[in-house]
Amino acid sequence: MAGTRYLAVRPINTLIKMDFKIGIVTASDRGSRGEYDFLTGEKVMDVLKEYIKTDFETVHQVIPDEQDQIERGLIELSDKHGCQLIITAGGTGPAPRDVTPEATESVCHKMLPGFGERMRQHSLQFVKTAMLSRQTAGIRNNTLIINMPGKPRSIRQCMEVIAPAIPHTLQLIGNEKIELQ
Amino acid sequence: MAGTRYLAVRPINTLIKMDFKIGIVTASDRGSRGEYDFLTGEKVMDVLKEYIKTDFETVHQVIPDEQDQIERGLIELSDKHGCQLIITAGGTGPAPRDVTPEATESVCHKMLPGFGERMRQHSLQFVKTAMLSRQTAGIRNNTLIINMPGKPRSIRQCMEVIAPAIPHTLQLIGNEKIELQ
Amino acid sequence: MAGTRYLAVRPINTLIKMDFKIGIVTASDRGSRGEYDFLTGEKVMDVLKEYIKTDFETVHQVIPDEQDQIERGLIELSDKHGCQLIITAGGTGPAPRDVTPEATESVCHKMLPGFGERMRQHSLQFVKTAMLSRQTAGIRNNTLIINMPGKPRSIRQCMEVIAPAIPHTLQLIGNEKIELQ
Repeated sequence: MAGTRYLAVRPINTLIKMDFKIGIVTASDRGSRGEYDFLTGEKVMDVLKEYIKTDFETVHQVIPDEQDQIERGLIELSDKHGCQLIITAGGTGPAPRDVTPEATESVCHKMLPGFGERMRQHSLQFVKTAMLSRQTAGIRNNTLIINMPGKPRSIRQCMEVIAPAIPHTLQLIGNEKIELQ
Repeated sequence: MAGTRYLAVRPINTLIKMDFKIGIVTASDRGSRGEYDFLTGEKVMDVLKEYIKTDFETVHQVIPDEQDQIERGLIELSDKHGCQLIITAGGTGPAPRDVTPEATESVCHKMLPGFGERMRQHSLQFVKTAMLSRQTAGIRNNTLIINMPGKPRSIRQCMEVIAPAIPHTLQLIGNEKIELQ
Repeated sequence: MAGTRYLAVRPINTLIKMDFKIGIVTASDRGSRGEYDFLTGEKVMDVLKEYIKTDFETVHQVIPDEQDQIERGLIELSDKHGCQLIITAGGTGPAPRDVTPEATESVCHKMLPGFGERMRQHSLQFVKTAMLSRQTAGIRNNTLIINMPGKPRSIRQCMEVIAPAIPHTLQLIGNEKIELQ
């Protein structure tokens, strides 16, 4: 996939069998040119570890803000890597190259509008412009895909309110139970 | 309609002419096999009586979680039975067989996203997983269709916040005025 | 355009070069017949002046509640008049002739669901029926289009919560910075 770079799958804890895989997609033109946005994916992983107790491994992708490339990345993480959860970071604003929600909707079989509503509502306490985020969430087979903002601080704020709904959603779409911290 | 069972139309008060008809659709695989989900429809009616003062009659349907069957049930309640209001119960989650919102959107001419937003926002006070409900509302001709959760307690919580908007909505789409308790 | 009436472009301050143009569309069957709904557009302009410090000029249109006519009006204000911001007033309810959100969605390349959510949520403090408004917002090229209710008081209430997000949104879609009061 042109423009996409991969980090190796990294086990968090090699002593325990890990079945829980989380895909992290950073949508970023700069990042995909190898500049600095791998950092965003690392930050997402740090935030995930704060909230999720069950061991997990992650597959990172940094993809330019092109809808078809983000779609292919999401499909690959879901269908090939078998990620039960995919977190995207970035590309949710109103600018012409912000296309992550469109890519998400395109690959999902079911949308979950409540996730976007909840994240915007919560973020509004911190930034007056929260309402212009178009972030959403949806289901592809048994994968839950959730759009997050691109800024690490905003990612933590969003995770704070949606983490409590993640384990139940994953179970309802056919996955094993995971535990939060 | 295969898989659909009907309860007889039941007058609440036979002394007063009743023009107000409410359709109740329980989306449930178990219920449509004759197990126990007629109870859900009864509970919905109990909650409606708590909030609506104007006499009404109800038409109950218990339909399996199949989109085309739910669509046909909604169309029948609206077009044939002339229900001004239809309440669905169940089938709003993220699981593969939760298809009530899809069926609702498919038969409606206009969607009312504010109802789903409001119900999720309110339910969040009671359950952390409220954001994963996909419930919505819409208009088919002069019928207002509102999706509710499947659990009686959640139905009451939702009715509490949407009841105040029901009479005005019904009037705006061409129906007579009804009164709340 | 049959049924559409125009007010002349009116400079607010002729001493300063004005590049910021705001289109105001009043969707109203009565107004387009020349009755009294030009007043709505005037009220929208008054509210805009309370919130926006940067000089702007406005182009008013009063259009009947016909989707295709509203679409053509929005396209003209965006493509021909070069309005960076368009505010619509009215036509957001559930009635059959309320079609402003449909017209908006039809001409926009990107929707911003957070604006409608935020306005409904805020309006709920004032009217119990806020949830039945279907108002939304979206982007057509570098024009931000925002639906408002038809009542002047409700317009002010909505502007209060969305004004803080307007300057940043306009910049993100390629426009110059504007300042709020």
